[in-house]
Amino acid sequence: MDPYPKPLRELISQLKRLPGIGEKTASRLALYILGEKGGLAVGLADALKKVKQCIRLCPVCFNITDKKLCAICQNASRDVSIICVVEDPSDVLALEATHSYNGLYHVLHGLISPINGIGPDNIKLPELIERAKKPSIKEVLIATNPSVEGESTSHYIHKVIRDAKLPVTVSRIAYGIPMGAELKYMDQITLSSALRYRRNIKDL
Amino acid sequence: MDPYPKPLRELISQLKRLPGIGEKTASRLALYILGEKGGLAVGLADALKKVKQCIRLCPVCFNITDKKLCAICQNASRDVSIICVVEDPSDVLALEATHSYNGLYHVLHGLISPINGIGPDNIKLPELIERAKKPSIKEVLIATNPSVEGESTSHYIHKVIRDAKLPVTVSRIAYGIPMGAELKYMDQITLSSALRYRRNIKDL
Repeated sequence: MDPYPKPLRELISQLKRLPGIGEKTASRLALYILGEKGGLAVGLADALKKVKQCIRLCPVCFNITDKKLCAICQNASRDVSIICVVEDPSDVLALEATHSYNGLYHVLHGLISPINGIGPDNIKLPELIERAKKPSIKEVLIATNPSVEGESTSHYIHKVIRDAKLPVTVSRIAYGIPMGAELKYMDQITLSSALRYRRNIKDL
Repeated sequence: MDPYPKPLRELISQLKRLPGIGEKTASRLALYILGEKGGLAVGLADALKKVKQCIRLCPVCFNITDKKLCAICQNASRDVSIICVVEDPSDVLALEATHSYNGLYHVLHGLISPINGIGPDNIKLPELIERAKKPSIKEVLIATNPSVEGESTSHYIHKVIRDAKLPVTVSRIAYGIPMGAELKYMDQITLSSALRYRRNIKDL
């Protein structure tokens, strides 16, 4: 006989659907929510429904937004000559947190991955090529992850823009050793990239 | 400028209220929920509201239930002569998972803790003493945690039952080394308890 009342069991199964949350954590969270007196259950339930109702994709760059255009596309102080291409909205958030980039974005919502049946037309790639044709665009900076899919998507974008003879620089975020890393623990591909793409120390 | 749309920021703040979930995990979970297509947000929101609406305390043992009486109190095959006293409903679940106990429970919903202003009357202790007066009760097994509060609550219950001269055995779950532990890493108090409460190997 299950010692958990049915509604509690249901909450545990729903929590277990979240990434990285197993049976034990789900059960701990559910019991915490049950005992909590500050309205967490209702607050969280409302926030969950609202996020699904209100969040849509920006029709220009496909970043997430609750407005017509996303906060970046409608910001007049951004540099409209450069588009940074990323896989997911979470990448936009990570890059924005650096405060080092003032251009526009383009969120692909996936990467080319033939093994998973994802081709260029299954992600927001045709829309990127259309945007790159605008005369205002001077640079497309590709910031996909340095994974197999990220690299092949990057190559594909470069090839299409080159073949279309668009007057656009295609760049790629730098490969190298991350800050705080220990050289002896770095993988060989990262280390060879870091050697190959070394910079004159005067330029740093 | 916050790059997160407002409803997403709100979901992140709500998720951060859960124990053990910080800014990074909350943000990762919120973005996962946003991208998920299987109805997780709605399912979780409904489960959260339902758990708060339907779960109440059993009027006899104060365990959680969605019925009039909890599943254990209304189970006719349980031994009604013994009451196991625990701090929280989660302790009932842990003990039930052992399938080693067939008696009743009493959930205190807290422990005596003068430093936090919690006295015997702030938890379900008077209700326990009332239950212990029933002629059917032969044993009160105290299974509070072996912490300062757990020990003093245990002592208090023992004292009250003894002073009331109730014909009830008061017992305490065993102290000792947990299975799989390494002696060299055990703390001194646990080790001295394990030595002091040693059993004749024939009785094991």
